Amino acid sequence: MNFTDLKVSDFGEKSLIKLIIRKTQKLQKNHFILGDDAAVLSINNKNLIASSDMLIQSRHFPKEMSYNQMGFKSVTVNVSDLAAMGSKPLGFLLNIAIPSNFLMKNFNDLIRGVLEACKFYNIPLVGGDTNEANEVIISGTALGISKNQFLKKSGFKNGDLVCVTGKLGLAALGFEILNKDFNCETSKIAILKVLKPIAKINEGTSLNSIASACTDITDGLASELYEILNSDKDSFKGILIYEEKLAISSEYKKIAKSIGKNYLKLVLNVGEDFELLFTISKDNISKLKGNIDFNIIGEVNNSSKIEIQRIDGGIQNISKEGYNHFIN
Amino acid sequence: MNFTDLKVSDFGEKSLIKLIIRKTQKLQKNHFILGDDAAVLSINNKNLIASSDMLIQSRHFPKEMSYNQMGFKSVTVNVSDLAAMGSKPLGFLLNIAIPSNFLMKNFNDLIRGVLEACKFYNIPLVGGDTNEANEVIISGTALGISKNQFLKKSGFKNGDLVCVTGKLGLAALGFEILNKDFNCETSKIAILKVLKPIAKINEGTSLNSIASACTDITDGLASELYEILNSDKDSFKGILIYEEKLAISSEYKKIAKSIGKNYLKLVLNVGEDFELLFTISKDNISKLKGNIDFNIIGEVNNSSKIEIQRIDGGIQNISKEGYNHFIN
Repeated sequence: MNFTDLKVSDFGEKSLIKLIIRKTQKLQKNHFILGDDAAVLSINNKNLIASSDMLIQSRHFPKEMSYNQMGFKSVTVNVSDLAAMGSKPLGFLLNIAIPSNFLMKNFNDLIRGVLEACKFYNIPLVGGDTNEANEVIISGTALGISKNQFLKKSGFKNGDLVCVTGKLGLAALGFEILNKDFNCETSKIAILKVLKPIAKINEGTSLNSIASACTDITDGLASELYEILNSDKDSFKGILIYEEKLAISSEYKKIAKSIGKNYLKLVLNVGEDFELLFTISKDNISKLKGNIDFNIIGEVNNSSKIEIQRIDGGIQNISKEGYNHFIN
Repeated sequence: MNFTDLKVSDFGEKSLIKLIIRKTQKLQKNHFILGDDAAVLSINNKNLIASSDMLIQSRHFPKEMSYNQMGFKSVTVNVSDLAAMGSKPLGFLLNIAIPSNFLMKNFNDLIRGVLEACKFYNIPLVGGDTNEANEVIISGTALGISKNQFLKKSGFKNGDLVCVTGKLGLAALGFEILNKDFNCETSKIAILKVLKPIAKINEGTSLNSIASACTDITDGLASELYEILNSDKDSFKGILIYEEKLAISSEYKKIAKSIGKNYLKLVLNVGEDFELLFTISKDNISKLKGNIDFNIIGEVNNSSKIEIQRIDGGIQNISKEGYNHFIN
C-alpha cells in the first residue's frame, strides 16, 4: 500500500498521538511532557496544568443521557485528567457547538449541567465560545496550577503496588444495560456511572507526591496499564494483577452473564470509569490509609508482561485491547 | 410562541453568550471576566490567560484552504485572542477530531501546519487529544500568563482615540475572490490574509498597559466597535470613525466594485482580519509611535452612537451587522 493511500484508521488513535509527539519533539527540542493525561507548562517554578477534551454527541453521549448530564460530563472528563496529574482544578473554559435549530430549553439544560458540575468541583466557568455545528460538540478545558510536584504516568519502581480508586468496570456494564431493567443496586450504580460520572479530585490531590505514577481510567484498565508501562523507559518492568483483588461482585458477574458478556473483559477492556489507576511504593501506602477509598489490585514486577492471576491461580496475559478511536 | 419551541437561531450567538454569562454570574457570585476575548483566572497575583476556539471544516475553512493552512489558522485564532488581552502566548493545546477514513498525508499536513504556527509564534505544543468525527474539527487552547495588567474590551474614556493595527477589510475581500484571478497586489494580500492569517502578538504586548481597551477583529469592525461600546457601563459614550482614515485603497474599491460588493460593507461588517482594534488616550499615543504599525481611525465621544463620517463629510450610523453564529 502506498503511503498516500493510508488512512488514520490504519493507525489508530494511540499511534496518531505518538506520531504527533514525535513530530513535536523533533521541532521543539524541549522538555515538555506530551502524552500524559494533561499538559504541563512550567512557568517561574509553577506548573500550569491544562486538559482539553472534545465530546461529540453521536460518539460520546449515549442517547439515554440528558443534556444536563452531557454538560456535567464535559466538565468531569477534563477535571478527571487534572485529578490524574494530582492537580486541583481552578477554572473551566466551555467551547460548545450546537445546530441552529437546537431548542433553547435543551441549550439551557446543557449549560445548567456545565454550571452544576463547575459548582460541584468548586471551579468557576471563566470563558469559552459558542459555534454552529450539525450536532452537539463540547470541547472543555480545565486549568489548574501545581506548585511543586505533579503525578505522571511514569516513575514507578519494581515492587510498587498497583492500585485503583473506587470500583472498576461499572461504566462498562452501565453502557450495556442503559435501557434494561435489572432492578438491583449494581445496575443502578453502573447506569449512574455512565450518565453522571464523577472525577476523583480529592483522590488525585491526596496521591500527589505519594504515588509513583498515576492516570485516569478512561480507555479501560488494560489499556491504561499498557500506557503506564510504555511510558517507562525500562522495558523489563511488568505488572501482575490479581483477579481476586478486583473485587468483582457476584451481582456484577450475574448481570454480565445474563447479557452474554464476559465480566472480565468488561472490567479490563472497556473503561469510562474515571477512577484513578496508580502505583505506590510499599513504604508510602500507609500514608494513604483512611484518606481515600482505594484497592490494591496488583504489583509492579520485572516480567516485561502485563498479566492477571485468575481466581483459580492460573496466570494469563492481559490483552492490550481497549478503547482506541478510529480502529474500534 | 411558547418557550419550549424557541430555537437558538431565535437568539443568535451574542445573546446565547450573554445568557451563559448571566447564568454563570448568578451561580458563581465571582469577579471573573466573562465575555472578553480570552478567559482570565487570577492566581496568586498572576493572571492566567486562556483562549479556546473551535473550528469546524465545513463552516470555518474555505475549500481553497490546505490542511496545512487549517492547522496554522487553528493556532492563530487562539493566539489572537491572547494578543487582544495583551498577553504573550506560552503554550498551545491541540484537540483534533477527524473522520476515520481521513488520509494520513492530510493528517500529517494538518499537524505540520499546527507545529509551523507554534514555531512561528514561538510556543510549544504542550498537549491535547484526538477524536473521531464526520469532518475535521479543531479545538485549540492557547495559554498565557500576565503578571500585572491585561487589556480588556472596556476601560476607554471620552476623547480617547480609536485605532486599528494593519489594514482592514482584506480578509473580507479575500473570501470573495478566493477562486478569482485579479493579478494585483491587493488581491494577493487579501487571499493570503484568508488562507494564512497571522495574530498580532507583538502589537498586543506593546499595547498592554498603554491602550485603554482592546479586542481582535474577528466578527467585523462594526461588530467589535459595538462589543467594546457595550462592555462599558456608561451608555453615553459613542464612537465616530472617519472613512478617510480607514485608508481603503482605490485598488480595493475597484475589486469590490467589479464583484458587485459595497467596499464599506466589506470593511465594516465582515471581519476575520485578526487585527487589533484598540482605544488609547491622546497622552499615550506617542508611546506607541515607531513600535507598531497602526492607524488612528476615529475617536470616542459622548454621542451614544457608533457613526462614520463619510469622505463627503456626511455622517451615517454604522450598522451593528457582523458575523453572528446561528442567525447569519
